[in-house]
This record gives sequence, C-alpha cells and structure tokens, in this order.
Amino acid sequence: MPRIALLVEYCGKQFSGSQYQPGVRTVQGDLEKAIATLARKPLSVTFSGRTDAGVHALGQVAHVDWLNEEVDLYRFCSGLNGILKEDVSVSKVQIVPQSFHARFSAIQRQYVYRICNRPHRSALFRDTHYFVPQMLDVEKMACALVSVIGDHDFAAFKSSNSDTLTTRCQLYQAELLKLSEGVLEIRIAANHFVYNMVRIIVGTLVEIGLGKKGPEIFSEALTKKNRDLLGPTAPPWGLTLELIKYPDLYQLFPLESK
Amino acid sequence: MPRIALLVEYCGKQFSGSQYQPGVRTVQGDLEKAIATLARKPLSVTFSGRTDAGVHALGQVAHVDWLNEEVDLYRFCSGLNGILKEDVSVSKVQIVPQSFHARFSAIQRQYVYRICNRPHRSALFRDTHYFVPQMLDVEKMACALVSVIGDHDFAAFKSSNSDTLTTRCQLYQAELLKLSEGVLEIRIAANHFVYNMVRIIVGTLVEIGLGKKGPEIFSEALTKKNRDLLGPTAPPWGLTLELIKYPDLYQLFPLESK
Repeated sequence: MPRIALLVEYCGKQFSGSQYQPGVRTVQGDLEKAIATLARKPLSVTFSGRTDAGVHALGQVAHVDWLNEEVDLYRFCSGLNGILKEDVSVSKVQIVPQSFHARFSAIQRQYVYRICNRPHRSALFRDTHYFVPQMLDVEKMACALVSVIGDHDFAAFKSSNSDTLTTRCQLYQAELLKLSEGVLEIRIAANHFVYNMVRIIVGTLVEIGLGKKGPEIFSEALTKKNRDLLGPTAPPWGLTLELIKYPDLYQLFPLESK
Repeated sequence: MPRIALLVEYCGKQFSGSQYQPGVRTVQGDLEKAIATLARKPLSVTFSGRTDAGVHALGQVAHVDWLNEEVDLYRFCSGLNGILKEDVSVSKVQIVPQSFHARFSAIQRQYVYRICNRPHRSALFRDTHYFVPQMLDVEKMACALVSVIGDHDFAAFKSSNSDTLTTRCQLYQAELLKLSEGVLEIRIAANHFVYNMVRIIVGTLVEIGLGKKGPEIFSEALTKKNRDLLGPTAPPWGLTLELIKYPDLYQLFPLESK
C-alpha cells in the first residue's frame, strides 16, 4: 500500500482544531471523511501535529496509507478538493516511502503570527491578525525576541493541558517584521513546539511592546521555568502554520519548476 | 461645518458594490447609516469612486460634512467602527479644507489584483485571489504588461455600461510580482480608470500567460480601441483598491510616526 503525503491548507475559523474530536468539526474529521468517500472505506490520516481551534495552516502535512498501488495522484487531489468544503484544501500530494511519518519525520515547524497594530480595527485583517489598538514599541519587541532563539527548556512557555513529552526545543528563527503601516509579522521556527508556545511568546511580546514587561522576561522565564512570569496566550486567529520541513531524502513537495 | 475625510476598508464579499443602491447592502449605505446614527440625522457621504460588488478596499477614501465645529475625531472614528459590521471599518479620519473632494481632488488610484496560480485550489486565498489552475507564463505576462504604462486612450478597456466621461488615462504603474510559489500580484496605478479597466487588463493578461493571446494585444487594443480584442473581465474578488493619492497640500492620512 503506497503511503501518500498531503499538503493541507485551512482557515481555522470554523474548525474546533485540526485533531479529530467526535461531534465537532475538525480538519482531520473533514479530511478523513473526504478520503473515505474516495476510498469507499475509512482510512486514518496522521497529521504532523495538531493546531488549535482558530489557527490557520498554509502548510500542514498529513499522511495516509492508500488502498492499492495504482493511484492517479492528480485525480486523488482534485477529488479531495471537490469533496472538501471551501475553507480546507489539499494543495499537493506525493507518494512517500513507508519510513515517512508526517509527525515523527518532521525536523522543523515554521509558524507566522500576524498583528494589526493601529488605533482602529481592520475589516480586512479581522480573521488573520490579532488587533492591538495601543501603540507597540516594535524595536523593543524585536530586540527582546532574539533571546528565545537557541536550544532552551521552554517549560515556562506551555499551557497546563500540554501533552508534550519534552519541553526542550531548538528555536532556529524568531523575528519580528514590520510589513507595512500597522502590520507586524512574527516568524518562528523550531524543531518542535510545546503546547501554545508560539501564542505565549507573542502574548508576552505584546506586553513587552506595551511596556508592561521588560525585555529580559524571556530569559528569566527560560531560567526559572515559570509560566506566571510570561504574558497571556495570544488569540489563535493571528497564527498560521506555514511550513513543515522533512529530511532532504524525502524531497517532499519540491517547489514547482517553471 | 467641518469636512471630514475617512479612510475606509472593506471586504467586498457581502456587498453589492460601494455605491448606494436601494434594497441591497452597499458600503455607502452602511457608512451613511452609521454616520446618521452618530449625527442623529442623515448626512450624505461622497466616495473617491465606486468599486464593484466583490471588490475589496484597504484605502477607499470618502468625505462627509459634519454637523458642528466641535468634533472629537477619535470618538467619531471609534463610534463608527462600533456601529459598522465587521467586514467594513474606518481606519482613519481627518478634518480637511472645504476645497477637498474625495472624488475630484484625487490625483492617483492604486489597485492590486491577486492571482493564485497552482494546480489545486486554495482554502486561504479563496476570497482574495483569482484561482487559475493552468500554469501561467509569468515572464511573458510581465513583459506584455509594460505596454499599458503611459498616457493612452483606454476606450477598448472599458465595459459597455461605463459612465466614465473620458477614456484617456495616465497609467503610472503596471507591474506583475511573483510573491511566493503560485501567488502573483499585479499592481496598477493611474490618475483615473475607466469602468472595469483593471479587471479587463488582468483578464487579458491571464490569456497572454496561457498563450491564448500574444503579448502585443495590449498595444493593438490601445490603437484600435476595440474591446473585442481583449480577454474577459477577471473576477472581482481578486481586486483590492489599495490607495488614493491627493495633492500634498491636504497632507491626507500621513503615515503614523513612531
């Protein structure tokens, strides 16, 4: 049975998260239902990791073991997109070796968190950006953010209902970009994340930008492993899972050549 | 009576265009209703120009003559955003001289048109990008687009139900950018536009990118003034009105200083 990897995109607004839960709409639930329609039998789909209710994804990765060797990938992908509702889509599919596992083979996850920082709310960014009406000190935030980069124990950066085994993470990238007037992007990449880590980093960063916390608070929380030192968990709709990286040997979803 | 300029943002999806029409939801209708609520009497709002049903705006400009000299601009703007539905907002307001007119003082309009060009549909870009599943020749499109820049008679580039007085336009900018894999942006700026001009340019450009029309078609249509030479009108949801420029003397909506 060939294993198929899927690149999955969704708008989190109408979902109770990515992970299957009975009685509510989830991305996994929708995708498994669509695949079952094509396969005419239930098949279970494994995700790279879960995203919370309201969190979006441009580059979620999942895998499924298909029924038989003969599979027309273009038709499989089109078929899924024909069945799935408009707020979830499969952008690419690819046959992968049996050694590939959407969760355990992943070596890096990249998230982007978007903030709309201006005095009055935005009609266009309402579902994708966290609206902060008070003026943020962007330079101070950018400086403070650097201190989370590296190999640290992020025990202080997780919500209590976390099921993560280890709280040690390699944070490869953490940067704040000012894209245009009032539009900020925080890009964070790590080998893995503890539960709610990105949203806790952002919630704290906003408090630093407002002057409610000092820029040293990240280092202090890393050392003392105390969640209470940090700010609130920023809202889910600002967060998008952008990309999951896998070892080169899988050559997963290479960019289209012209 | 002070004249107030408003910077208006909206998601076009739920609107039958910007211009007031009885019995349907329009941006002008919503805005006039919100202003009437604050003013306790009807006041008419003048827009820089109309946008069609489905077209978005980040930088639509309007003006209204307020009732009395004493106006708290922050409260006025917050009041409007409290009344308006979430898909329309007022990002800035400013007192302007009586000589200012949202439509007649405008010296430049900037639009952006977004295309999602990849084999399978996108859940995240569905309301903001025109989905073109066939591979486009982006370089050919970028070259062809250059020929519309300059002072031309755009008679061929207007829909028949146009109310534009002159079809002569100064096109300052027309460029195609490839933002990321499968995401294209076409940025077009002119002193004014004839009806549906941007969407006809884009609809034609897509046919050039598909090889259905040659890159010389723009020049030919400009010379022959024949609408039939050009491609179809691209769908409205890819289009966003980004910015309206006014003479420096008004210093309209200056960028926030840090």
